[in-house]
Amino acid sequence: MKKDDCIFCLLANGDIPTNTIYEDEEFRVIMDNAPATKGHALVLPKEHYADIYEIDPEVLGRAIQVGQKVIKHATKVLGCDGYNLLQNNGEVAGQTIFHFHLHLIPRYADMDNSQMLKCPAGEGDADAIKALTESLKVE
Amino acid sequence: MKKDDCIFCLLANGDIPTNTIYEDEEFRVIMDNAPATKGHALVLPKEHYADIYEIDPEVLGRAIQVGQKVIKHATKVLGCDGYNLLQNNGEVAGQTIFHFHLHLIPRYADMDNSQMLKCPAGEGDADAIKALTESLKVE
Repeated sequence: MKKDDCIFCLLANGDIPTNTIYEDEEFRVIMDNAPATKGHALVLPKEHYADIYEIDPEVLGRAIQVGQKVIKHATKVLGCDGYNLLQNNGEVAGQTIFHFHLHLIPRYADMDNSQMLKCPAGEGDADAIKALTESLKVE
Repeated sequence: MKKDDCIFCLLANGDIPTNTIYEDEEFRVIMDNAPATKGHALVLPKEHYADIYEIDPEVLGRAIQVGQKVIKHATKVLGCDGYNLLQNNGEVAGQTIFHFHLHLIPRYADMDNSQMLKCPAGEGDADAIKALTESLKVE
């Protein structure tokens, strides 16, 4: 259901003008107004889901398929050298709007990439990882 | 098809031992051996696809559904405060193994988050973004 106090509900449903690059019954893909890189876009479901914990699995599956379609086209148009797909849940993970969205972020070899989406590898304590594995098993 | 010279094909298909937390006919979810944070895991399709450009859309949709299932369970077990889902395509985007994979990265409020997955907002030239929108439109 659409929430009238959610900015992404209003954007996704066309109640506020956007730079839309894709739309169907279920999703709208818009250009990010403060793009991390040229071409940065967001896949928004029109229904309100706060995050990956709330979103219907079927809608989630279709959201990433929409993202794939946009990335394939945009890679040709932009001439970019790579792409990140990023989905943040929780403030500590960088989520600022609590309406599920996928970031589609083109990457370019000729830009300064030093501050973008670094994900430093940790030490990798093999025993600790093995111990953790048991508790994380999902049927 | 499985590629015998692809390390993630070998891991996904059980040819090399892994710390597996989920497995079905199509996917294996393993613990990252050099985790960015405690609990960092990877969703691997058993079939070989290099990246989001190659992967079958149906497999892609199911991959993120597997990721969602793992995240829901792992959040309870780990007591983490958020989660990033990250998928990299191309060396410039941080892809190091050229077999499609989804990173599932738990985030914790009580750790140093300053170097993790920063995605700095750009200036947002409204005219440039509007102009770009036309060329990026996807049917």
